[in-house]
Amino acid sequence: MSGNSFGKLFTVTTFGESHGIAIGGVVDGCPPGMDLCEADLQVDLDRRKPGTSRYTTARREDDAVQILSGVFEGQTTGTSIGLLINNKDQRSQDYSNIKDRFRPGHADYTYQQKYGTRDYRGGGRSSARETAVRVAAGAIAKKYLSQEFGIQIHGYLSQLGPVKIEKVDHSITNTNPFFCPDESKLDALDTYMRELKKSGDSIGAKVSVVATNMPAGWGEPVFDRLDADIASAMMGINAVKGVEIGDGFGVIEQKGSEHRDPLTPQGFSSNHAGGVLGGISSGQELIVHMALKPTSSISVPGKTIDIDGNEIDVVTKGRHDPCVGIRAVPIAEAMLAITLMDHCLRQRAQNPVSTSQTPDITANK
Amino acid sequence: MSGNSFGKLFTVTTFGESHGIAIGGVVDGCPPGMDLCEADLQVDLDRRKPGTSRYTTARREDDAVQILSGVFEGQTTGTSIGLLINNKDQRSQDYSNIKDRFRPGHADYTYQQKYGTRDYRGGGRSSARETAVRVAAGAIAKKYLSQEFGIQIHGYLSQLGPVKIEKVDHSITNTNPFFCPDESKLDALDTYMRELKKSGDSIGAKVSVVATNMPAGWGEPVFDRLDADIASAMMGINAVKGVEIGDGFGVIEQKGSEHRDPLTPQGFSSNHAGGVLGGISSGQELIVHMALKPTSSISVPGKTIDIDGNEIDVVTKGRHDPCVGIRAVPIAEAMLAITLMDHCLRQRAQNPVSTSQTPDITANK
Amino acid sequence: MSGNSFGKLFTVTTFGESHGIAIGGVVDGCPPGMDLCEADLQVDLDRRKPGTSRYTTARREDDAVQILSGVFEGQTTGTSIGLLINNKDQRSQDYSNIKDRFRPGHADYTYQQKYGTRDYRGGGRSSARETAVRVAAGAIAKKYLSQEFGIQIHGYLSQLGPVKIEKVDHSITNTNPFFCPDESKLDALDTYMRELKKSGDSIGAKVSVVATNMPAGWGEPVFDRLDADIASAMMGINAVKGVEIGDGFGVIEQKGSEHRDPLTPQGFSSNHAGGVLGGISSGQELIVHMALKPTSSISVPGKTIDIDGNEIDVVTKGRHDPCVGIRAVPIAEAMLAITLMDHCLRQRAQNPVSTSQTPDITANK
Amino acid sequence: MSGNSFGKLFTVTTFGESHGIAIGGVVDGCPPGMDLCEADLQVDLDRRKPGTSRYTTARREDDAVQILSGVFEGQTTGTSIGLLINNKDQRSQDYSNIKDRFRPGHADYTYQQKYGTRDYRGGGRSSARETAVRVAAGAIAKKYLSQEFGIQIHGYLSQLGPVKIEKVDHSITNTNPFFCPDESKLDALDTYMRELKKSGDSIGAKVSVVATNMPAGWGEPVFDRLDADIASAMMGINAVKGVEIGDGFGVIEQKGSEHRDPLTPQGFSSNHAGGVLGGISSGQELIVHMALKPTSSISVPGKTIDIDGNEIDVVTKGRHDPCVGIRAVPIAEAMLAITLMDHCLRQRAQNPVSTSQTPDITANK
Repeated sequence: MSGNSFGKLFTVTTFGESHGIAIGGVVDGCPPGMDLCEADLQVDLDRRKPGTSRYTTARREDDAVQILSGVFEGQTTGTSIGLLINNKDQRSQDYSNIKDRFRPGHADYTYQQKYGTRDYRGGGRSSARETAVRVAAGAIAKKYLSQEFGIQIHGYLSQLGPVKIEKVDHSITNTNPFFCPDESKLDALDTYMRELKKSGDSIGAKVSVVATNMPAGWGEPVFDRLDADIASAMMGINAVKGVEIGDGFGVIEQKGSEHRDPLTPQGFSSNHAGGVLGGISSGQELIVHMALKPTSSISVPGKTIDIDGNEIDVVTKGRHDPCVGIRAVPIAEAMLAITLMDHCLRQRAQNPVSTSQTPDITANK
Repeated sequence: MSGNSFGKLFTVTTFGESHGIAIGGVVDGCPPGMDLCEADLQVDLDRRKPGTSRYTTARREDDAVQILSGVFEGQTTGTSIGLLINNKDQRSQDYSNIKDRFRPGHADYTYQQKYGTRDYRGGGRSSARETAVRVAAGAIAKKYLSQEFGIQIHGYLSQLGPVKIEKVDHSITNTNPFFCPDESKLDALDTYMRELKKSGDSIGAKVSVVATNMPAGWGEPVFDRLDADIASAMMGINAVKGVEIGDGFGVIEQKGSEHRDPLTPQGFSSNHAGGVLGGISSGQELIVHMALKPTSSISVPGKTIDIDGNEIDVVTKGRHDPCVGIRAVPIAEAMLAITLMDHCLRQRAQNPVSTSQTPDITANK
Repeated sequence: MSGNSFGKLFTVTTFGESHGIAIGGVVDGCPPGMDLCEADLQVDLDRRKPGTSRYTTARREDDAVQILSGVFEGQTTGTSIGLLINNKDQRSQDYSNIKDRFRPGHADYTYQQKYGTRDYRGGGRSSARETAVRVAAGAIAKKYLSQEFGIQIHGYLSQLGPVKIEKVDHSITNTNPFFCPDESKLDALDTYMRELKKSGDSIGAKVSVVATNMPAGWGEPVFDRLDADIASAMMGINAVKGVEIGDGFGVIEQKGSEHRDPLTPQGFSSNHAGGVLGGISSGQELIVHMALKPTSSISVPGKTIDIDGNEIDVVTKGRHDPCVGIRAVPIAEAMLAITLMDHCLRQRAQNPVSTSQTPDITANK
Repeated sequence: MSGNSFGKLFTVTTFGESHGIAIGGVVDGCPPGMDLCEADLQVDLDRRKPGTSRYTTARREDDAVQILSGVFEGQTTGTSIGLLINNKDQRSQDYSNIKDRFRPGHADYTYQQKYGTRDYRGGGRSSARETAVRVAAGAIAKKYLSQEFGIQIHGYLSQLGPVKIEKVDHSITNTNPFFCPDESKLDALDTYMRELKKSGDSIGAKVSVVATNMPAGWGEPVFDRLDADIASAMMGINAVKGVEIGDGFGVIEQKGSEHRDPLTPQGFSSNHAGGVLGGISSGQELIVHMALKPTSSISVPGKTIDIDGNEIDVVTKGRHDPCVGIRAVPIAEAMLAITLMDHCLRQRAQNPVSTSQTPDITANK
């Protein structure tokens, strides 16, 4: 209840601080009988891992995940899956610098106000390190969704500061350190990031994630709508400040005659809705966008106060991503997968009574 | 679990279809000892009520709410509060027109896919009529938050199609049928809506809602973040396609040195974050924006299919708002109030042990 | 969260006080496509109804339930089902007698301690009147379980004070006002109750409830065990002080060789376990017993204190059951049905991946 | 949702199989600012630990618990607490004996029916080994309840087969391997267990647990009653088949005039209720009893079937407790502590509005 679990039927609970002994979690609700091994999880963990390029933090972590339970003879058993990732690179650092001050734009101040205390080492629980567990859990969901429904989840960087991605080719995304799906923009990104790093500043980004081969009928109609749960999942990723489904904020200036997606015997002929109508998946491609703020951990000096209320200057040293949006791509994929998995199980739970006559309109998809 | 409840400690459960006997709900978790009567709820219900101006649907409903339980001798008792609103204006209509077809942009198709059946009268459960119960429940939360903390929640229309609101004066908002806080835009809105109505089309809108006098420390740090729960609450409102906290999608092109809000002994000196850091309220004004799609219930003919998969034209007759965004203002306020109320109770539950020394930094707010 | 909901996937939320305007609730999670009408619910409500014999309270209530939503053209739609029962017999009474005093054995004192206030009229929320809503909700679950699985739920009085029932014939239970399944005990019960009423005292009882045609595999293995959830459901019924599954407290003196139920190719050859092994249903008959305390509302004077701490005598006048255990029979059935329904949906949610090879051992049941 | 979490505000989630790499869990909701270290948890783990006497299984486990997160500089931070206990004694065994057969009285058959698969090594998830995590989590709750309220939780063996404990002296309980609070019964227990072990059979037991210094007002009035949640917590312990609060099944033959506990200016003058009235704690001592079945893992041959439905004989070899009830004592204490902790936080969440006048009746406790 203090907010370390996500999902009602497929539930992911995480623990761990940035510079603690280990991070980990529990995945509860995975159906039995699915092949699963640590390598299935490691792929996405490696994509999220810091230190893979000069554009991300230099902190080096193996991020090697251990499955402690819930898998027997290579298959899920239906019981809870324990996950553990040891923290290797906990440099014994001098924290006197951040211990007694509130870095602007960080959670330092709000944690202190909430709890009256905080683990200030590397941001503690507010560090993006925690998201490694989400990525591991998301890989389980991804595998299930792919195997049972053919659902594919593709995340990508859609904008970085002023550099807008114009072409989306999912086969390009994982070939470059930016998760950029547009080959023609790689040089621009490289140049921009090189300059940025020199300046000691950081930049915001837009990340998108889509799911293909979606079944229709997932999502609840009033409060646990598929889009509402996706919004919660994405806004719950560190640094996210905005979430859109389909045309998102673009709808403000749209007319109804322009926005609504016509149905034809061959399926929908457009997708302004982004795959959700009335909170329920329509079978169209699911389209989600999010905005990520620039990290506040920069070497440009800033104004703040210390714990005694004195005005001070602050400079964040250490290993930090100049654009946290980049590494958010596999995290966003994971959170979408977890959300879909939860709704897959929920939809299955409440299926119609066997005597009901459901008209066959799947051909219309 | 089929999604008709919102909130973990302050829980609102709703029931009811647009053209059923009644709509209603249960509010669970309201603290005891608060003065409460039906008039407290009616104020916001009247603001949301259809038929109040020529810009909203002509459907006439009293929307008179009854409190059936949980209040004794004018005070809440701490037990569940039953709410009931009878549906008065259920015109006995000919539904043959929509019974067997899927209106584009509506939930007709997704409900049918999900449940194999649907109450097609007036949209059934997918109708915005259900939100009247949210507004009633939200009024309870609003009263509590105001009385205990002085929190004020102000919603307003911030854009309607091409008409952008530039000045926000909360004293203006409730003086006009648009919930527009900018007196200088009233004529433009009036002209735009008049033209729109003539054309039989509809338009999208942007709605904003802010909360002042926020305490710091509300919200959980990982999954049930205050901003994530707000995103879920807002995206769960009919027609919402995007949600922003603070600068929202504006952060994409911001630098870190520009985005972070400096702390000073007098408080934060800017509010790009919108009042949330690391998922927890900072004590700054809470700022939320959302985008609402144009309603698909328009008299401009559209393409769709019937239940047998035949291609047909559809025209939606009946009483519909040309801009559903307008009436979303009190709904957004209600959902923000419910979300804050939930986190207020959560924060209270997990307060520090009595022996801990919490440094007094409230002076820094 | 303040405890007015039961069930995770099939969720029943109730509201209402004994002497308020109405009681009611919301049933969330019922699968779509099931025939349902008010008469389906009324059968059990009438069984629970007060005033049906001289052995129960003389309070007269129609207990006529209204289904306000979630049913369309005679079938459930999958959306939330609103239930309403008006309180008709709210005698305008003089409550000065109980307003300022704590009746011993009642919830008066604990409500006052918890909430700092209470609706003292007829016990308010602590009155057994609230259970009428549970019975209505349970009838929905009963119908589904019967229709989909052939599960039959039979409750009965198994002991009343010193009178122990020895023979269980479910066809007898509903032919007498005691829900007694043993025709040979009816005279003894009648005599005992007649004497009891004369004395102005009350008596405890034991109630049992069984479910036949149970599928194997329902229940979660660690915390939400089927037996644990049943224990919660039964202990949550007013006046229940003990719950047993199968042999219950009888197991204390049993040896392992005696207790374990052998499996044979024809099924289990005994049922000491009461149908649950490791928290999961075995397919055997589910057997539950519970102990209900004698009501404290008696005309025998008792010692207590008033709200100012003064020692006083108290005599409860008014219309009260001398044995609340009797009318608990349909309530226990309802709570068992709701619990089973919840686990039915949960089991369905997490079913094995389609590629897994589940050995066919159903023949062994 | 697949049942590996307990508690709504103080939530314990566990994972791990008997013969897997490790068991562990997450404790979510612990207030910040409490001193906590591994030694605080180890005390109870050592009491539960197997291999401590000849009356319990000879399996040797250190059961050394690691706190992986949520504690910083010796104090809880309010974030989730990760717990890990490595499985040391995983003898590489020949499981061919139990792999394809269903031991009578075990969860083998029900797991297979539920999941279509099972981790058969040592009982997998159904093994009592999982309860070590509950004990560790319970120790956190115990410490908090003791420190903040002075609540003390005492478990003890109250009956073992035919040997009934008559005197309860909590200072005796932890001085003997039976958790027996009655010194005069130690010889009888020793003799009985010696004979039992020789016979290769097992025996049932009754365990009791009480909580002193209880505040009044904890527990919700309708569904999440304190007694209902305790019933769920206890029935969820392996082998428990019955739960009683206060006089339990003894109430069946009690009269109302005998059962109700009079209130006096000095407090209640008896405690038949066991500390709960209307689902809410009264401030009296909380009294809980439970019945535990004899383990089915015995060397007395039994009848069962194999996975192909063939009739076979089964003998359970290996290291098993002849009376699982004994080691259930610290588990029952832990589950009571977790339940109370949950309700402590819930009560705190919904406290009265500051303007309400709560009459001071605490003097009457």
